[in-house]
Amino acid sequence: MAEPCSLYLTEMITQIRRKKLSPLNLMESVLKRIDSLDPLIQAWVTIDRKAIQEEAARHADEISRGKMRGPLHGIPIGVKDIFYTAGMKTTAGSKVMENFIPPFDSTAVHRLKKAGAIVLGKTATTEFAHADPAPTRNPWNLDHTPGGSSSGSAAAVATCMCPAALGSQTGGSVLRPAAYCGVVGLKPTYGRISRHGVFPFSWTLDHVGFFTRSVADAAILLGVLAGHDPQDLSTAQEPVPDYNRSGKLARKPLRIGVVRAFYQQNSEEQVWSHTEKIMAKLEKAGARILEVKMPPSFAAVQDAHRIIMRAEGAAFHEKLFEKNLAKYRPKLRDLIETGLLIPGVDYLRAQKIKRLFRRHMEAVMKNYDCLLTPATSSPAPPGLSSTGNPWFQVPWSLSGLPTINLPSGMSQEGLPLGIQLIGTAFGEGKLLTVARWCEKVLQVSCSPRVGLSPINKQGY
Amino acid sequence: MAEPCSLYLTEMITQIRRKKLSPLNLMESVLKRIDSLDPLIQAWVTIDRKAIQEEAARHADEISRGKMRGPLHGIPIGVKDIFYTAGMKTTAGSKVMENFIPPFDSTAVHRLKKAGAIVLGKTATTEFAHADPAPTRNPWNLDHTPGGSSSGSAAAVATCMCPAALGSQTGGSVLRPAAYCGVVGLKPTYGRISRHGVFPFSWTLDHVGFFTRSVADAAILLGVLAGHDPQDLSTAQEPVPDYNRSGKLARKPLRIGVVRAFYQQNSEEQVWSHTEKIMAKLEKAGARILEVKMPPSFAAVQDAHRIIMRAEGAAFHEKLFEKNLAKYRPKLRDLIETGLLIPGVDYLRAQKIKRLFRRHMEAVMKNYDCLLTPATSSPAPPGLSSTGNPWFQVPWSLSGLPTINLPSGMSQEGLPLGIQLIGTAFGEGKLLTVARWCEKVLQVSCSPRVGLSPINKQGY
Repeated sequence: MAEPCSLYLTEMITQIRRKKLSPLNLMESVLKRIDSLDPLIQAWVTIDRKAIQEEAARHADEISRGKMRGPLHGIPIGVKDIFYTAGMKTTAGSKVMENFIPPFDSTAVHRLKKAGAIVLGKTATTEFAHADPAPTRNPWNLDHTPGGSSSGSAAAVATCMCPAALGSQTGGSVLRPAAYCGVVGLKPTYGRISRHGVFPFSWTLDHVGFFTRSVADAAILLGVLAGHDPQDLSTAQEPVPDYNRSGKLARKPLRIGVVRAFYQQNSEEQVWSHTEKIMAKLEKAGARILEVKMPPSFAAVQDAHRIIMRAEGAAFHEKLFEKNLAKYRPKLRDLIETGLLIPGVDYLRAQKIKRLFRRHMEAVMKNYDCLLTPATSSPAPPGLSSTGNPWFQVPWSLSGLPTINLPSGMSQEGLPLGIQLIGTAFGEGKLLTVARWCEKVLQVSCSPRVGLSPINKQGY
Repeated sequence: MAEPCSLYLTEMITQIRRKKLSPLNLMESVLKRIDSLDPLIQAWVTIDRKAIQEEAARHADEISRGKMRGPLHGIPIGVKDIFYTAGMKTTAGSKVMENFIPPFDSTAVHRLKKAGAIVLGKTATTEFAHADPAPTRNPWNLDHTPGGSSSGSAAAVATCMCPAALGSQTGGSVLRPAAYCGVVGLKPTYGRISRHGVFPFSWTLDHVGFFTRSVADAAILLGVLAGHDPQDLSTAQEPVPDYNRSGKLARKPLRIGVVRAFYQQNSEEQVWSHTEKIMAKLEKAGARILEVKMPPSFAAVQDAHRIIMRAEGAAFHEKLFEKNLAKYRPKLRDLIETGLLIPGVDYLRAQKIKRLFRRHMEAVMKNYDCLLTPATSSPAPPGLSSTGNPWFQVPWSLSGLPTINLPSGMSQEGLPLGIQLIGTAFGEGKLLTVARWCEKVLQVSCSPRVGLSPINKQGY
């Protein structure tokens, strides 16, 4: 039998419900995996073994008494270290916050716990979710970056140290590490998941997202996390559908729009030829692959994103920065120092471009069931000093449209490649349905039991 | 019998419905009034006599055939010249726009027309609703300002050239001219009335408002204008109650909170002593007058407002300004030039103060049915080079809370004084109920038939 830690989230849920797996055994297996791998990977910054073992025992005991807290009862989940966890250190990957213990749970963590999940520990993040790297390494090749900013969460899920983990994305901080580490990464629509109790970076761009090893697992987690939160007024009142039920598509064949503009010319050659192969496979399986004409505002997207991120980042850090100058690392320091100089009118113009681009994309999306691009311009680059290039993910952080990374194959260097599917605003249900179909067609799984496996490759 | 033009809006509605007054006779009376007064007052910039006479004839004809378009059937209404009117010049009081003919109606104008109103004409505004004065004069003393930016609308209603007129407020552009001209002025909650098709000044502060001569008249107009508009996503989905029905107050006696802080020290002596008298009257009539402790964020309100208004104003005008430098007047030019220099972080800090102040005020308002302040620091000042000081109205533009001006008496110079009542967010129903009660107690009417009359005083 497979090690419990290497089960999919959905499998863990079923086995726990059927009493074939105890939360205690699951926790043991997970901790054993962490013990053997994390000294190399460095995905975790805080794990309170005593507390979580007690917690797992409590969950096991409840099951024996017939009590289930919710769909995630007894499942250990990783949490990026920018989410407030009551009573547990939350450092945001920064010396400035090294001793900060939040007095309450972020809404996302609260919802996980309410659904029965056990917060396994906090995963490594770049400094305040910007670009100064975490110590985490890419599990497929320890000399390569795992991507960022949600570095630890992506690497932990890729190596079965946990079945799922929370992340966040302001530029490309969920989709890029998901692609580099070969896991599923979902960034839902702006306003879909509450950010209450999450360290802000740039609040009109910040999204909560997460990592799993299958689309079905992502649907489970989204169902738990999505919904309006009065503590975060940017969350929408939109109803939350049942994501676990794979909806039928109204339109057949599936219409997938491929974005060539910008993506083709900025991709490594092997990335674009891989993407062409993926398109051919999907077409052969019955989808219509259509070329998307991007709106004129697309050309202004990268600049607008940089200006908003820098101005809001500087505004959030300004006072903290004055008091803790020496504790800030160089990339965030540079962001703050340049952010402080951005004129208000430039910021407002960038926000205008953002609104325009979102409106333009709404019109474009009417013609497709989803859009497709390569998730990243290259596989995970060598070195740990940079977390890679966010260009390919940025347009969807700016537009707020939901995106998902699907592992789609391997590079020449033996590193994962991924495709990025983009859905309509609050259309995560359809996006997940399309993603399930693509996952089935591509048959590239990030499970360590099905070929693509950092575990096997590294000989752990 | 009174001249039709000097009837209240509610009276016009009743008489037209009962066929005691024809839209044609009403229009004749109104145009006669304009002919006799406007050469002095200069409230109007565009009136298309032929078109509106034809329109009135059509409305009259429809009535004779038993057709009523809506509650405002056949009523002539004034429209500030920053609202788009399809096919009718909309200059925003600026040389830059002197030949601009909008291709569609602003939502507010569209709603008026749908309710059966006739757009009588466009009223004078300061340049782009900022501070460079319109030619309009105060009907109580032609050497004094009528206030701004909605100068023409306030003066036209005060002199019965129309029963009601649209205005807008970014700082104090509805409440101040209402107070200076002795009419009722309502600025509803931010997000209550659509701004689609209105020239923006500072879009996170801009409100559509209007002028009438009684609270009952204001309730009618609000009912027509309020509600969500998909074309202006800042408009709330909040349901629109029936404002015409005077709701009962849950709590008796009425609790009125008086804001002394800032207001007392910045009022002319006669203004504050007048306010004290008003408080005494209201108390004698049964209200409880309580002192309000303002939150700490109140101290930052004026600065935050100025920064937001300047940055957004500059952002809106930047390109237009480059191309039309010589056409801009000095006050708006100064606003744009300084606005261009405001750092993004200062703007973002100001927006943070705005959110904080609104949240603080929500807590404060729980203890009162409404707040009360003098509407302006002085009666209309002499001279036409300035439209007066917006300080007293600014906190409620920043907070987005609804406010109404009630004419409350006369100054030593024989100019109107007003009190400003402030309600809770989307609590216009209650605010109007309280205002109706105060109006009854104070018995100060702005009708030319009941004493306070610019018409009589000037000997027109």
